[in-house]
Amino acid sequence: MASHPFDAAVRLCPAGEHLYSAQTSEPYGNFVGPFGGITAAIAVRAMLLHPLRRGIPLSLTLHFAAPIRDGSFLVHASPQRTNRSTQHWRLELVQDNAAAIFGSALFGVRRKAWSSSEWVPPPVPQPEALARADGSGREPCVERYEMRFIEGAFPTEWHGVDTGSSLTRLWVRDDPPRPLDFGALAALSDVFFPRIWRRRPRKVPVGTVVMTLHFHATPESLERSGEDFLLGSIQSHGFREGYCDQTAHLWNRVGELLLTAHQVAYYRQ
Amino acid sequence: MASHPFDAAVRLCPAGEHLYSAQTSEPYGNFVGPFGGITAAIAVRAMLLHPLRRGIPLSLTLHFAAPIRDGSFLVHASPQRTNRSTQHWRLELVQDNAAAIFGSALFGVRRKAWSSSEWVPPPVPQPEALARADGSGREPCVERYEMRFIEGAFPTEWHGVDTGSSLTRLWVRDDPPRPLDFGALAALSDVFFPRIWRRRPRKVPVGTVVMTLHFHATPESLERSGEDFLLGSIQSHGFREGYCDQTAHLWNRVGELLLTAHQVAYYRQ
Repeated sequence: MASHPFDAAVRLCPAGEHLYSAQTSEPYGNFVGPFGGITAAIAVRAMLLHPLRRGIPLSLTLHFAAPIRDGSFLVHASPQRTNRSTQHWRLELVQDNAAAIFGSALFGVRRKAWSSSEWVPPPVPQPEALARADGSGREPCVERYEMRFIEGAFPTEWHGVDTGSSLTRLWVRDDPPRPLDFGALAALSDVFFPRIWRRRPRKVPVGTVVMTLHFHATPESLERSGEDFLLGSIQSHGFREGYCDQTAHLWNRVGELLLTAHQVAYYRQ
Repeated sequence: MASHPFDAAVRLCPAGEHLYSAQTSEPYGNFVGPFGGITAAIAVRAMLLHPLRRGIPLSLTLHFAAPIRDGSFLVHASPQRTNRSTQHWRLELVQDNAAAIFGSALFGVRRKAWSSSEWVPPPVPQPEALARADGSGREPCVERYEMRFIEGAFPTEWHGVDTGSSLTRLWVRDDPPRPLDFGALAALSDVFFPRIWRRRPRKVPVGTVVMTLHFHATPESLERSGEDFLLGSIQSHGFREGYCDQTAHLWNRVGELLLTAHQVAYYRQ
């Protein structure tokens, strides 16, 4: 069976203590360097493979300090502190002996406790009732996802008029479909196009500078998500003198909140 | 003029390259160790004092990996990469030769650009129309803030019944009042009591494990905030098997969004 392009893109080889070697993957290319989502997935995978790993992902923060160019790079993932139920990590993605991307993560052992998805999904049409977006002509990574926009689709006219909202909602899944895991979920958090393009459609330079993911998913809710669409919702809270934030939510079809994701991006406008 | 307790609590002495010495401060004590907000303020201050610092705070992520005990500790703040308009930092708060708290930050040079506080403050009564909350008998740090709850006040009955919402809104400022700066803003992001206590009031153990702050404030909007109240709103998106997230917003009286703040906390329930 041919491997899914996602699995090829997150392939890691052990390269020493706390160290893995990785390769950029053409199918997940973006404007400049790799799709940030695949980078997050690679970071998650390095920790999941690590022999000292304890628990499952709870949070991940990555700083995109410099571009990764096509080719090989190293992933350095080391547990900084392991407590009874939490484990704190340091991460570096190194190319040319410099950390182009770095950050930290939290893993944890979950335990049975009262639980609730307080933020329930908004009432929306099901994906079968919506048209698939045409991602052709955009960056390669866009075609790795099947997107069905509910509102706030990719602009068709770059009129530069303030639309009054940066909200986008869509159903999204890997293309071809693939059973959801922590890495794929991390990648899906980054499928949303830049919020300034939604709020005020002009094709200005933009880029993620730092991302923080908070995982609500468990092995059981990933299993229930399977290969099905996830519902994604994203909005910026503010655009201020060259930098904006954004918060995204991803739910599975049965309404379980799987991930909240926060970014700071730069924009010129 | 006597110094404000906040200024005493964030006092740092240069102690080497990228290194400052600090002291815990009794007035900002919390359940276990110092108030997380004052720790965030200390981290911000170390970077602001650093001779290689470029720009102003855009984001800060801190992992609370181990408690800080009363006494002295070291703050290690080093720029990892400085680009044309962004600067990425690594941070460690070290006690007994181990990093009890660590993380990363982003500073940046802002530039004139189209701007908007997309998330406008909700319609609420002004602070003068609300009663001041009584924080006596709680942790010392609670008394460092004047809080006027609009909704979702600190529980008065620990009935353990699901209230259906973790939302709290309040007006808050330093007590005594103090002109707002980046450090004080970082500290104010953490004044909210644990969300599980709001959603399902039982006095269960809780604690912040990792926090991420996104700064929207500029020197001008800090100046406009002055010593006045900030409007704070906070809610969890989900509680799942021992860990919950939360997102807070802080606005000044004229409706400018100054900060969004995201945490993962553990809870037993």
